[in-house]
Amino acid sequence: MNAQQEIKPYVIGLDLGGTNSVFGIVDSRGEIKATTSIKTQGYDNVENYVSASVEALQLIIDQVGGIDTIKAMGIGAPNGNYYNGTIEFAPNLSWGHDGVVPLADMFAEKLGIPVALTNDANAAAVGEMTYGVARGMKNFIMITLGTGVGSGIVVNGQLVYGSDGFAGELGHTIIRRENGRPCGCGRKGCLETYCSATGVARTAREFLSTSDEPSLLRDMKPSDITSLDVSLAANQGDKLALRVYEFTGEMLGEACADFAAFSSPEAFVFFGGLTKAGDLLMKPIQKSYDKRVLKIFQNKAKFLVSSLDGSSAAVLGASAIGWDL
Amino acid sequence: MNAQQEIKPYVIGLDLGGTNSVFGIVDSRGEIKATTSIKTQGYDNVENYVSASVEALQLIIDQVGGIDTIKAMGIGAPNGNYYNGTIEFAPNLSWGHDGVVPLADMFAEKLGIPVALTNDANAAAVGEMTYGVARGMKNFIMITLGTGVGSGIVVNGQLVYGSDGFAGELGHTIIRRENGRPCGCGRKGCLETYCSATGVARTAREFLSTSDEPSLLRDMKPSDITSLDVSLAANQGDKLALRVYEFTGEMLGEACADFAAFSSPEAFVFFGGLTKAGDLLMKPIQKSYDKRVLKIFQNKAKFLVSSLDGSSAAVLGASAIGWDL
Repeated sequence: MNAQQEIKPYVIGLDLGGTNSVFGIVDSRGEIKATTSIKTQGYDNVENYVSASVEALQLIIDQVGGIDTIKAMGIGAPNGNYYNGTIEFAPNLSWGHDGVVPLADMFAEKLGIPVALTNDANAAAVGEMTYGVARGMKNFIMITLGTGVGSGIVVNGQLVYGSDGFAGELGHTIIRRENGRPCGCGRKGCLETYCSATGVARTAREFLSTSDEPSLLRDMKPSDITSLDVSLAANQGDKLALRVYEFTGEMLGEACADFAAFSSPEAFVFFGGLTKAGDLLMKPIQKSYDKRVLKIFQNKAKFLVSSLDGSSAAVLGASAIGWDL
Repeated sequence: MNAQQEIKPYVIGLDLGGTNSVFGIVDSRGEIKATTSIKTQGYDNVENYVSASVEALQLIIDQVGGIDTIKAMGIGAPNGNYYNGTIEFAPNLSWGHDGVVPLADMFAEKLGIPVALTNDANAAAVGEMTYGVARGMKNFIMITLGTGVGSGIVVNGQLVYGSDGFAGELGHTIIRRENGRPCGCGRKGCLETYCSATGVARTAREFLSTSDEPSLLRDMKPSDITSLDVSLAANQGDKLALRVYEFTGEMLGEACADFAAFSSPEAFVFFGGLTKAGDLLMKPIQKSYDKRVLKIFQNKAKFLVSSLDGSSAAVLGASAIGWDL
């Protein structure tokens, strides 16, 4: 740790979600010293959003000793471009869906500190490398299993941003080239359509409609079934629900076998709601991977679940990209 | 360029192939000053192979002014592991197929200079970055279309070796998950089974046997058809042969669309025998890629053919990894 960091012991992390914007002030050991939040969409335009953010932030900045204790700010946001510090055409943000928003510069100007921004999955990967199970790893792949499937890839100790800042969209690699499920991206067969939380619910509905197998899930209206329901049923031993997790894990293992051929990571780290299923998901992933991966990669990669607390992990991840500034 | 490089203006490159081992002494602009070669398999064991190599090398080292003019040596070899400088279980090398050969150390000891070793596709990528069309690029993917399909991936200006030194096996990502062609690696549906020189010949045989379409290739015994024959027929306007290239290019474009989701490269650089087909191959690749790639990556990556002379490219590539030592 250098002299500057000793003088400025904190970074701000902003987890910018479609609903809430959660801010945390974090020290170098990943301890969140103060936190606050605002509604992301409660503002007409981005100027008002940033003003409201800074107003809320000022209270917690004062709590930790003022802006002079803050080294930098990191933002994890949908469609975040690390190179420009912009949010680009984010479909779920009322003030960000039809253009390029220079959010990092706007915060930097208001706060007077350096600000970095990247997408949420990349932030999660840096968070895991800085504070979590990937500490000390130079090569790993973070896969976030939430509403969608996101990814952050670390190679030689650095996040892979690619030529344009948008690298690491493994949720949109094609896992089924024939009769693949339609994806929100306009294409078919993306990994995300099978292995996200919505993908899991979709798989459950498919299994229910194509068999007569009894299942606790038959008590529900099919369109109401969520991945949480599938997980609850699986934990009660529901065979159909268990098969849904096996199917999902098998497909993730298949995908990871291809990802290994790319960057031969030391570990795959999984994060997000679906990982709460634990071994129900992780065992099929590893089994499928072992069966399919190229021989030279067999028995090498570890399969890990994020060690960061779900509710604070996104803020920690965002804060982590601030340390490099 | 630093003082040391001014004093030692050359590196040795060794293209270690299954048949020939070609050595070149190369300057920083990629000019080959002297060259020699020996048979790779003409020796009982690796000690004798190295002794014969050094003996042949001594003549050309003397030609350029002695060993004091040589900064380092780079080796491109099948199953080469950059981290250890070893060749590991290389099936096609009589003295290297059943173990781990510390070839870099052996040459370093005999020559008294640093020696680096990597696989041939990685060496080609570094060569392209040092002397070829990828000069100045920080993010690109090199795809070699020879007997097999190899790859070298550059991210943030560095080659991706992964956790074990074996990253970048894109020829063994699965492009057909159902009814895929059997691959030499023991699995099915690898990109290599379709898009290598042998894959192209295989496609031609398939097209011939599943249609009555007239073709110049029908004059040949199917098992004798090579990718060169397909290319000659295509250049004479043979429709079936043209379809073989379209099929091959379409599949490569499909694969590249997935690779973009990984590292979003500035360019894909193709190298090897098949690229002699020129636009016959490159146009279908790009068309298929444009149609399939995720929207945010559209119209970004360039599709290039290596600018290095085929016969010297492998030696140049090998030499290039020496500059970093």
